[in-house]
This record gives sequence, C-alpha cells and structure tokens, in this order.
Amino acid sequence: MTVQHVTIVKSLLAGNDRIAERNRARFRAAGVLAVNVIAGPGAGKTSLIIRTLEALRDRAHVGVIEGDIAGSIDAEKVLAAGAGDAVQINTGGGCHLEADMIERALDELDLRRLDVVFIENVGNLVCPTHWALGEQIRLCLVSAAEGHDKPVKYPEIFTVSDAIVLNKIDLIDLVDFDRAFFYESVRALNAGAPIFELSCRSGAGLAAWVDWLWQQRMRWGPAPCTR
Amino acid sequence: MTVQHVTIVKSLLAGNDRIAERNRARFRAAGVLAVNVIAGPGAGKTSLIIRTLEALRDRAHVGVIEGDIAGSIDAEKVLAAGAGDAVQINTGGGCHLEADMIERALDELDLRRLDVVFIENVGNLVCPTHWALGEQIRLCLVSAAEGHDKPVKYPEIFTVSDAIVLNKIDLIDLVDFDRAFFYESVRALNAGAPIFELSCRSGAGLAAWVDWLWQQRMRWGPAPCTR
Repeated sequence: MTVQHVTIVKSLLAGNDRIAERNRARFRAAGVLAVNVIAGPGAGKTSLIIRTLEALRDRAHVGVIEGDIAGSIDAEKVLAAGAGDAVQINTGGGCHLEADMIERALDELDLRRLDVVFIENVGNLVCPTHWALGEQIRLCLVSAAEGHDKPVKYPEIFTVSDAIVLNKIDLIDLVDFDRAFFYESVRALNAGAPIFELSCRSGAGLAAWVDWLWQQRMRWGPAPCTR
Repeated sequence: MTVQHVTIVKSLLAGNDRIAERNRARFRAAGVLAVNVIAGPGAGKTSLIIRTLEALRDRAHVGVIEGDIAGSIDAEKVLAAGAGDAVQINTGGGCHLEADMIERALDELDLRRLDVVFIENVGNLVCPTHWALGEQIRLCLVSAAEGHDKPVKYPEIFTVSDAIVLNKIDLIDLVDFDRAFFYESVRALNAGAPIFELSCRSGAGLAAWVDWLWQQRMRWGPAPCTR
C-alpha cells in the first residue's frame, strides 16, 4: 500500500513538473520574476511580501498569488498594501500548492503589467518542498521565534532553496536563538544560498533582501515600471 | 489521477484508523493518557512537553514519542529533562505521523511504568490533522508569535482538537496579537475545547493546563506513580 502510494506521488510530481515548466516559460516570456515563498504558519510570509512590494513600489509592479487552505485575508491584505494584482487560491484542506493551481491563477493575472510575482504557499515547511510551481526563486522563510533548530528538523526545504530569510530578528534576543547553530546547520545543507536576517516589523535588514531580489529580476534587463 | 489519489488516501486513512484503535486500547489497558501534540514548526511542542513533565514529576511518569523528519534533538532533550522514557521516530521526509509508526514505537515503551505519553507530531499544522494515532487527547498548539489568524487559515485542526494551547504569551504584546479575533475564530470552529494561554518560557499559565491534563488522566482512577 505504501509503495503504491509512493509511486503515484512520484507520477503526480512528474506531471506537476511539466506544468511547472509551462508556468516558468509564461513568467519568463513576460519578464516576470516568480518567487515561491515557503514557510511554516505565522513565520511572516504575507508580511514579507507586503514589505517587499512597498520597498519596490517605485521600481516595479508586484503581483501576488495567495495560497491558503481557507480564507482570503491575505489577498485582501496585499491588495490594500498596494499589490498590482492578487489572486487567492483556496486548497480546501490541501497542504501545498501545485503547478496546475498556479496555471489557473495565471489566467487571472495580467503578467505583462507585472515585474515580480510572489506565490505565497500554504503555511507548511514540509509538503511544498518538492512541488515546483514554475518559480525562478524558491524562498525558505523562518522566524527567529521558531528557534534555531529548524534546519536540523526540516532539512529538505533548506537544501533546495535559492534564498533563506530569517524573519522577526527584533525578537531574537527574547527567544534564546543560537545564531552559530543556525548558520552552521544551514551551511551543512546549502553552501550557496544567501541568508537574509530581517524584521518585517522594524524594517531592519529589509533593504539587503529587496536589493538582492531586484538584482535577480534585473539580470533580464530593464523592467519598465510604466509599461 | 487526483480522484485515484484521494481514494487511496481514504483507504489509507481507514487502515490507519484500525491501527489507531489498537494503539488506543493498549494505552487504555495500561492506564496511560496519550496526547497527540500538533503544531507548526517552532510553536513550542517540545518546550510544552518538557514543562508539563516537570510539573507532573511528583504525580506521574511521563513518556514521549518524538516524531521528526530527521534528527533526535527532541528525544535527547526530553530525556535530559526527566522523561521516564522516550522513543524517536524519523519519518524521513514524511509530513505527519501515522498509527503504524506509533504501534512500532509502543513496542519500545514500557507502558505499565507510565501514566501519560506525549506524542510529538511532525511540525505541521495541516497534514497530521486527520491521522488518528490512538490518542485520547488531540492537542492543537499555536504560538502568539504566529499571529491571531491561524484559526481562519488552518480551520480543520482547530475544529477537531480536544484542547488548544496558545503558547509564547510573553511575546503577545510585541506582535500585535488580536485576542478577540483569535477567540472568536476558534469558537466559530470549536465551541467546547478548552483554550489555555501560557508561556513555556516564563511559566505563566502552565498550572491550569497541567491541572486540566491531569484531571483527564485521573478520570480513570488513581495513577500510582510508584508502580
């Protein structure tokens, strides 16, 4: 039974990857940098998206695809914060986003008017790991309040991520966070991904993250905000 | 493909439930109250278990079954803190515990010497929800640092839980936590489950939780700590 289950999951993943490649091509053709934001519940995914789109306001149009089991709180939040466009996906119990959900969401977004699209995954540090969505950047986001042992306990997401954000550093001195342990654990899994310490609340460290992200987009040439 | 997947998951759940009933009978026969602790990453599952077993030290022997994707940090921690016994399960990427894993773990625990067993699930507020393990109490644990909107975003776990713990209330004034919103959202999903606010760090609120938990065990009659 378990083996059968695994086989089907693998087959589903292969089908998913084909759709993800189509999504990736659509993003690329439109000059849109797509970022898949993966984190546990309450790490600050929506806050990071909002602070980033605020910081990019003069440079870029930012769209958001919100993935939640239920509710549309986040899509409303990002639109109120100035997102150029937003689509809410409700998975109805599903623990991660899949590429076909993104494909349908893309039909609702005018990609030609956007430069960056954040895809906010379901709050889950495990299941979204291996489901490609068509993103260029897979972002692993954890908060200092979650503790320094997340890389040891959830190694796969740290291994496959293109960038890592450590949020809520305004709380770091209140929660016995061992920075050396955290960095050593991350580096044992992923030698190259940049690590950004920041606080969406205080704004500390945000500029370095935003500048890095924008550099990734600018590799493709100018992004005319006025288009 | 999706339908086939769903069918198999349902069939797996039915098989799981049969094993869970066997586990439940074993716990009950030994006079052991089993608690399935479900939370996202870093909400404080291990800390709550440690603080609870310390508080119960003079009344009960507490065992722990630790579920993690990788590592044995938590089993080592709870043993160092005085757990009567501990077993580590590594799911190797799996996003939740299943009843057969608990069944195997029970072969490693001397239940006759224990009064309470905590089962620390994989850090995930979604997938463990519907996998019964044989517990008497399904505990939903969230931290104030995760924000007040968790019930809206992860409604299923709040709906099916027997008790809800809101941890890290020492941080609650630092994170714009809207208590009224949280309580209203929980009560819309679950009218009866007790809600315990506490801080594993400061110790605030722990006594009410520990006393309630111990009452659940004592419904079965005395638990001779000396057995």
